[in-house]
Amino acid sequence: MINKIGREIPDEFLKHGVEPFQGIYYRDGYSYQKAAPKVRAFIKPNGDKLVASIHDVIVKSGLQDGMTISFHHHLRDGDFVVNLVMKAIHQIGIKDLTVCASSLGKAHDYLVPCIEDGTVTGISTSGIRDEIGKVVSEGKLKHPAVIRSHGGRARAIEDGTVKIDVAFIGAATSDSYGNASGKGGSADTGVLSYADGDAKYADKVVIITDTLVAAPNFPASIAGVDVDYVVKVDSIGDPKKIATGALRLTKDTRELNMAKEVAKCMYHSGYFKDGFSFQTGAGGPSLATTTFLKQYMDAAHIKCGWAMGGVTEPIIDLFDEGYVNRVLDDQAFDLAAVKSAQTKNHFEISASQYANPFNKGAFVNQLSFVILGALEIDTDFNVNVVQGSNGVLRGAPGGHPDTAAGAAVSIIVAPLIRSRMPTVRDHVTSVTTPGESIDILVTDYGVAVNPQRQDLLNAFEGTTIPLKTIEELRDLAYKYAGKPAPVAFDDKVVALVEYRDGTIIDVIRKPKRLD
Amino acid sequence: MINKIGREIPDEFLKHGVEPFQGIYYRDGYSYQKAAPKVRAFIKPNGDKLVASIHDVIVKSGLQDGMTISFHHHLRDGDFVVNLVMKAIHQIGIKDLTVCASSLGKAHDYLVPCIEDGTVTGISTSGIRDEIGKVVSEGKLKHPAVIRSHGGRARAIEDGTVKIDVAFIGAATSDSYGNASGKGGSADTGVLSYADGDAKYADKVVIITDTLVAAPNFPASIAGVDVDYVVKVDSIGDPKKIATGALRLTKDTRELNMAKEVAKCMYHSGYFKDGFSFQTGAGGPSLATTTFLKQYMDAAHIKCGWAMGGVTEPIIDLFDEGYVNRVLDDQAFDLAAVKSAQTKNHFEISASQYANPFNKGAFVNQLSFVILGALEIDTDFNVNVVQGSNGVLRGAPGGHPDTAAGAAVSIIVAPLIRSRMPTVRDHVTSVTTPGESIDILVTDYGVAVNPQRQDLLNAFEGTTIPLKTIEELRDLAYKYAGKPAPVAFDDKVVALVEYRDGTIIDVIRKPKRLD
Repeated sequence: MINKIGREIPDEFLKHGVEPFQGIYYRDGYSYQKAAPKVRAFIKPNGDKLVASIHDVIVKSGLQDGMTISFHHHLRDGDFVVNLVMKAIHQIGIKDLTVCASSLGKAHDYLVPCIEDGTVTGISTSGIRDEIGKVVSEGKLKHPAVIRSHGGRARAIEDGTVKIDVAFIGAATSDSYGNASGKGGSADTGVLSYADGDAKYADKVVIITDTLVAAPNFPASIAGVDVDYVVKVDSIGDPKKIATGALRLTKDTRELNMAKEVAKCMYHSGYFKDGFSFQTGAGGPSLATTTFLKQYMDAAHIKCGWAMGGVTEPIIDLFDEGYVNRVLDDQAFDLAAVKSAQTKNHFEISASQYANPFNKGAFVNQLSFVILGALEIDTDFNVNVVQGSNGVLRGAPGGHPDTAAGAAVSIIVAPLIRSRMPTVRDHVTSVTTPGESIDILVTDYGVAVNPQRQDLLNAFEGTTIPLKTIEELRDLAYKYAGKPAPVAFDDKVVALVEYRDGTIIDVIRKPKRLD
Repeated sequence: MINKIGREIPDEFLKHGVEPFQGIYYRDGYSYQKAAPKVRAFIKPNGDKLVASIHDVIVKSGLQDGMTISFHHHLRDGDFVVNLVMKAIHQIGIKDLTVCASSLGKAHDYLVPCIEDGTVTGISTSGIRDEIGKVVSEGKLKHPAVIRSHGGRARAIEDGTVKIDVAFIGAATSDSYGNASGKGGSADTGVLSYADGDAKYADKVVIITDTLVAAPNFPASIAGVDVDYVVKVDSIGDPKKIATGALRLTKDTRELNMAKEVAKCMYHSGYFKDGFSFQTGAGGPSLATTTFLKQYMDAAHIKCGWAMGGVTEPIIDLFDEGYVNRVLDDQAFDLAAVKSAQTKNHFEISASQYANPFNKGAFVNQLSFVILGALEIDTDFNVNVVQGSNGVLRGAPGGHPDTAAGAAVSIIVAPLIRSRMPTVRDHVTSVTTPGESIDILVTDYGVAVNPQRQDLLNAFEGTTIPLKTIEELRDLAYKYAGKPAPVAFDDKVVALVEYRDGTIIDVIRKPKRLD
């Protein structure tokens, strides 16, 4: 059937209560019984939970064919945990597993042979890129991958859509009772926000660490009361690849100009008030926005109440300089964020607190502004951040659909043309974030406001913001780069794009050409 | 039927899977599906959760006849919340409620008329004393009260034995999204440990505060993602009665001598090692133990890894002086504890983390020592801390059965005779904590070791600890105070004493005389 934004969702994927996307607030007020784990009471004193090896803990956990396992991505490109666990599972010969990861990337290429031989037959993830993006695009995964935003994954775990049988949680430090933290040790990730739901909802919870510390390992991101086993390994990750050094602030004039327009839109929006809140992504123009924000905060004599996110050095700079009162952290993108995670008024929040649409109110709901990127955006403001314009999976929704739906003002910043392909176009290759939740598009050729936000159009009147309609921007893009030729796809659906509320916003088919 | 420790449990109370007590580790390894709340998704941004009055929030919550409501006791004798809510409920005319409180005391006398007119027909609590103890002893509550330890209450909520429909949580501070804390404001309780399960497992969660603060109110004890409504009232409690000033350290020679023997037992036990952990109660000899502990720590050149509990000034003194590395806090007993709750290495833990026998390992399991009191103790080392020797309810299990079961060495300290009644006796009036979990009894007439702890008997050999058998202590008690006359009871059961694992350890009947 055709869903609310005109994407065709084959009926075979609309079974067992799964519905097509029906608008961003369709499920506001939805009542449901939360899921809950099956747990085993640990009453006898003086035991610990240490198990000698990953192999042994897999056996002890009772992992069997057809089950679901989970991982988080705080170790990012330096992660050793997924490969350590998958190699041991491969060796044991367990098959037909679903991997529910908060994200997957470069560090997880060992999943490719696991997909190819049926060890892994299902994947739920935010990031789907690099070799895994390719193998899924090729249709080698038995079941379509399910692409979820960070809030959508938290929701799927809490509402029981995903039942994790065994969670494998890499942690920088842990005590022998499983009180585990992202802080300390040699693989410091700052926070463990994305593992929170895994620990609370999985039947069996395994902490994998390279640094055992004396109990109690407090403050703990993961509570020992939720942990069954603790395994010490030599190393859970490569610190050099976990967090990058300082992300270079762009010197590209085009990007700086876009960043300045973003800050200007914020300033004039009517929401730029003392105590405002915001989130930015880690892209060049997003990062550069923080510099201009500072000037505008000075001009308006205001401070930011809290910044959230994916935390980066420019945010930490604003925080350290007193422009931002508090940081709500669900992920550290660089070393400055990792280091700051230990400071006062820098708080770890769980993925559910961050963005889950089905709890009693996530922090995204309280965002004044979010600044996001786009691979493509269509004239209905629908955004694609998952699929390349050649049809191959190469991105991640992350918190994109969550923050866009929650923020009072959501701003996309993207160049009009990228690698000679128009960013603004009649149709996006697939929809990650519905246009209903996008308010402003800032490009290097002008700024378009979603017509549903007449308040913003009024607010921007008489300013120097170079307003255009999105159709005008599309026309410019097509003029300079040519109208994009349609990509040819097979019928085979290789991935489902689940909106944060569990409805299906789009499906992704196998491209006929994979180069 | 007669349970494992010889107490008769009428069959009518052993239905629907309720079992008689069968030993302290009977349910170790027990597997079960955790309970979970029914929640309502709050997706639309920019709303808040403020409701104008307690009356309005009761109506909005959907509270109806026959439901269960909950309260915590961190506001102690200064609590206004229970009475505020019960008066509004009384006025609305809702009947047949069960009150699941973490404890009840002097501040909650408004429950008496509610019990008498059928507004409240069931009570689950730890503390059952003062006017509420009397009215329950008189048999005026429709259903027998269920007396639970702190760990037992956390378990009952998490395993679904108790289903809380609406939780009313008094909090020192909250933001309008329900991120709530025990810290700050004018009714500072330090922590909100006992409300943790209420917030996570109740269908509807109401925060009642007198101090609204800017969002996010972090660090939060209660996460806004679990909260439906926030109500601001003039005052949630009387600060003077919430926490007492400094508890006076005893100067009573008899108590000091007992305290010294307790410390001596700890020192010689074989468990007095660097990094050891302990908990003490707030009674005179327990508090005084800390003074002697310091001397013994100096002598042994060791430090305490962590102290847990009900936190008091003597513990904070040890902590501030560097004798205790960390404090794990589930309840502040005095102003020194409240104040310290804000400091580094003083950590709030939930009731479940503290003592729940059905999670994957509570902190009580890791206690080296616990020092506890007793109203009565029998020659099987069974302890009563709930019922007066006249049969009237006047106490609270608190964490008594939990810490006794968990600690490597559990020590009861009590005078041999109290108000001319023998503390040590053939039979206790009712059993709160089974003797199987009690290792040492320290009295002013000697020290008895549970014969099952031959290791301790060996360890104490050749020391100056004045060892006696418990029968010898009983004989002395009977010699000086006379053998106690049996209390006469009606058949009517007015309360069930539930062991921490949900089995029934004893029942309490209506005494024929209530003076």
